[in-house]
Amino acid sequence: MAFGWIDEQARARRRAGLVRTLRPRPADTPLLDLASNDYLGLTRHPEVVEGATEAARTWGGGSTGSRLVTGTTALHTELERALAAFCGFEAALVFSSGYAANLAAVTALGPHGSLIVSDAGNHASLIDGCRLARGETQVVGHADPEAVRKALAAHAGAAIVVSDTVFSVDGDRAPLTALAEACREHGAGLVVDDAHGLGVLGDGGRGAPYAAGLAGAEDVVVTATLSKSLGSQGGVVLGPARVIDHLVNAARTFIFDTGLAPAAAGAALAALRLLERAPERAARAREVAAELYARLTAAGLDAVRPDAAVVSVRAPSPERAVRWAADCRTAGLAVGCFRPPSVPDGISRLRLTARADLSGAEIERAVRVIGETRP
Amino acid sequence: MAFGWIDEQARARRRAGLVRTLRPRPADTPLLDLASNDYLGLTRHPEVVEGATEAARTWGGGSTGSRLVTGTTALHTELERALAAFCGFEAALVFSSGYAANLAAVTALGPHGSLIVSDAGNHASLIDGCRLARGETQVVGHADPEAVRKALAAHAGAAIVVSDTVFSVDGDRAPLTALAEACREHGAGLVVDDAHGLGVLGDGGRGAPYAAGLAGAEDVVVTATLSKSLGSQGGVVLGPARVIDHLVNAARTFIFDTGLAPAAAGAALAALRLLERAPERAARAREVAAELYARLTAAGLDAVRPDAAVVSVRAPSPERAVRWAADCRTAGLAVGCFRPPSVPDGISRLRLTARADLSGAEIERAVRVIGETRP
Repeated sequence: MAFGWIDEQARARRRAGLVRTLRPRPADTPLLDLASNDYLGLTRHPEVVEGATEAARTWGGGSTGSRLVTGTTALHTELERALAAFCGFEAALVFSSGYAANLAAVTALGPHGSLIVSDAGNHASLIDGCRLARGETQVVGHADPEAVRKALAAHAGAAIVVSDTVFSVDGDRAPLTALAEACREHGAGLVVDDAHGLGVLGDGGRGAPYAAGLAGAEDVVVTATLSKSLGSQGGVVLGPARVIDHLVNAARTFIFDTGLAPAAAGAALAALRLLERAPERAARAREVAAELYARLTAAGLDAVRPDAAVVSVRAPSPERAVRWAADCRTAGLAVGCFRPPSVPDGISRLRLTARADLSGAEIERAVRVIGETRP
Repeated sequence: MAFGWIDEQARARRRAGLVRTLRPRPADTPLLDLASNDYLGLTRHPEVVEGATEAARTWGGGSTGSRLVTGTTALHTELERALAAFCGFEAALVFSSGYAANLAAVTALGPHGSLIVSDAGNHASLIDGCRLARGETQVVGHADPEAVRKALAAHAGAAIVVSDTVFSVDGDRAPLTALAEACREHGAGLVVDDAHGLGVLGDGGRGAPYAAGLAGAEDVVVTATLSKSLGSQGGVVLGPARVIDHLVNAARTFIFDTGLAPAAAGAALAALRLLERAPERAARAREVAAELYARLTAAGLDAVRPDAAVVSVRAPSPERAVRWAADCRTAGLAVGCFRPPSVPDGISRLRLTARADLSGAEIERAVRVIGETRP
C-alpha cells in the first residue's frame, strides 16, 4: 500500500516518546509566553499591526507573483533599503521565509567545485542549503575556527564558511571574528545566519555581524529572519550589491517563489522603524536573558549561559522534557521543548526566550514555575 | 577574493541576454495585468484585504514561532480545515510558501531506499524536493505515464510519483488519471502540485485532483499555493490524516520554519470563502484563457492551448522575448517573460495569465498589443 511505511515510523515515534502534535493557540491567553521568538515583544505592537494592515489595504493580500515578475512592490524595495541601512550592508533581498533566504544564500554562493564549510550546530535550513548546493560540504566541529581554517587550507578553489551567529538550541554565539579571520586568510566568503542576533545583539539590535565589525564587508553575507525580533514573517539576505544581484539571478528560492506578502513586509518595516526609535529594546532583551539565566542557575537548574536572548535548560530525557513543558503550561507558563531530531546532540531541553517586554515579576514567576515542575 | 567568481558569471549572463533585474511596481498602475498569478482577481478584493487586516489585528504581525511551538493559531487550524474540506481531503497542513510545502512533501514522503519518479517539466521546488530527499530520484519524460509505469516496475520498495498538475511554463495539464493508475498498479503514492489548478480547475475551483476523481484518495497527496488563486501567501499539503501527521513529525521545512503570518492565513481563508460563494469565478478564468488562446492563434501567434489559466506564447530568443515584453509594457500591458533557466526546454516565452476578472475589451486589447509588438 502507498505510504504504508508511515504507520511503522509513527509507532516507532510513539515508543520513543517523540510524537509531535499541533496545539492551536487562542488569540488571548493567560499563559506567560517564554516560548515564542518575539524577542522584542513587537508582533502585537499597534504600529506593527498598523504596518501590516496599511500594507494589505494598499497592496492587497498577496504580492501576486515571483519577485521577478509582479511580486516586487515599492514596499519590498523600501524594506530592503531600510534593512540594508540598519544592518550596515550595501544591499538586501527579502524572501518569504528565513528558510528560503538560507537555501538561497548557500546554494547560490556554493556552486559546483566550491567548498562549503559548515558548523555542526547549524540550523536545519543552512544544512538543507548545503545539501542542495552543488559545492562540496565539509561539516566541522561546533564553533571551531581552527577546524574551519584547516578545511579551507586543504581546498584550492572558491569557498564559503557557513554558520549561525547565535545557535538556536543553546543560544550560544559563533566565534565570528575568528571565523572572519580564517576566511580572509584563505580568500573565502563568510555566510552567517543572524536569525537570533538581529534585534538583540549589536548597537541598537543591528545584529551580531555589526557587533563584530563585519557589517558591510565585501566578503561577508548575512541572512536573517523578519519573523523573530521584527515580529512578522520572511527572511532577508544582506551583503554587497554584487552578491545580491547574483542571488536575484541565480537563487532558485528567490526566482521560483512568490514574493513576500505586502502585510508581512509592512509589519517588518514598522518593527524596524520602532527599533530605530527605541534601540534600548535590544539591550533589554539581553538583560532579561541574563536575569533568567542567573535565577535559573541559582535555583540549581542546568541552564546554558545565554549570548543573546535564548536560554536553554537541559532535561533528562525527551519524555521528561515533554512532561516538564506540559507541567509548566498547566502552571500558566509557555516554554519551548526541543527534542530529537531538533537537537544536534540528542539532549532534550526546555527552550526559553527572553522578551524585552518581560517584567521582573514575570521573570521571577517563570523561574519559580520551572523550578517547581522540574523532573 | 571572496565571491570573485560572481563577476565572471555576471558578465556571461550579460553576454547571453539573461540578466534579471527587479522592477518595483507602484500600488496603482494603469498597466493591464496579464503577468500576475492572481487568477481569480481576488488579491485586492475588499473581503480578502479585510481577512488580512482582521487577522493582523487579532493575532499580530507574525505567528511568533515554529508551528510546533507557538506558530499554530486557531486561525491556522480553521484555514487547514477549510482547505481540506474544499478540496475533498481528510487533512491539510499550511506552510509559509508553496516552495516549502513541496520541499516538505517530497522529502518526507521520499525517504531513504524509496524511489521518486519525477516529471521532467516539474517546478523548481519539486526538483529541489527530489534533490533534498533521501530517496533515489528518476526523472522521466514530460507527461509520460508509460515511462512512469516502467520506472515503478523496476523498483521493489516504496515509491512516489511527483508531478505538477498544471505546468507553470506552458500551462499544460498532467495526465493525472493515467498517473494514478500507474501508481495503483505498483502500490506507489502520487504527489501532485496543484499550484496552478486550485481555484481554476475542478468543480468550483476545487482543483485538478478533484476534477480527476482523486480527491480524498488514500494514496494521493496534493500540494498547492495560497499565493495564486487565493490571493495571499503560503502553501498547503492536502492528504490522508496519517500522511499529514507524518509531515508534522518529519518535514524539516515545517518543523524548522516560522508559521505562516496570520494576515496571510486570514487573506487566504477569506478568498476561499469567496470562491465557495462564487464558484463561477473558476470557470470564468478558464473561459478567459480559452478566449486569449483563440485570439492569439487567430492573430498568427505561436500560443499553446491552455489547460488551465496560463497561456504561453513562444518567442524567438531570450533577448527578443525581453524586448517583446518591454514593448508590451510600453504599450500598457504587463506580461511575464520566461527565459532560461526558468524554461526546461530552453525556449523563451511570453507567459500570460488569464484572470477571471478580465473583460472582453481587456482581452481584445491585450491580444492587439501582443500582436503589434511581436518580434
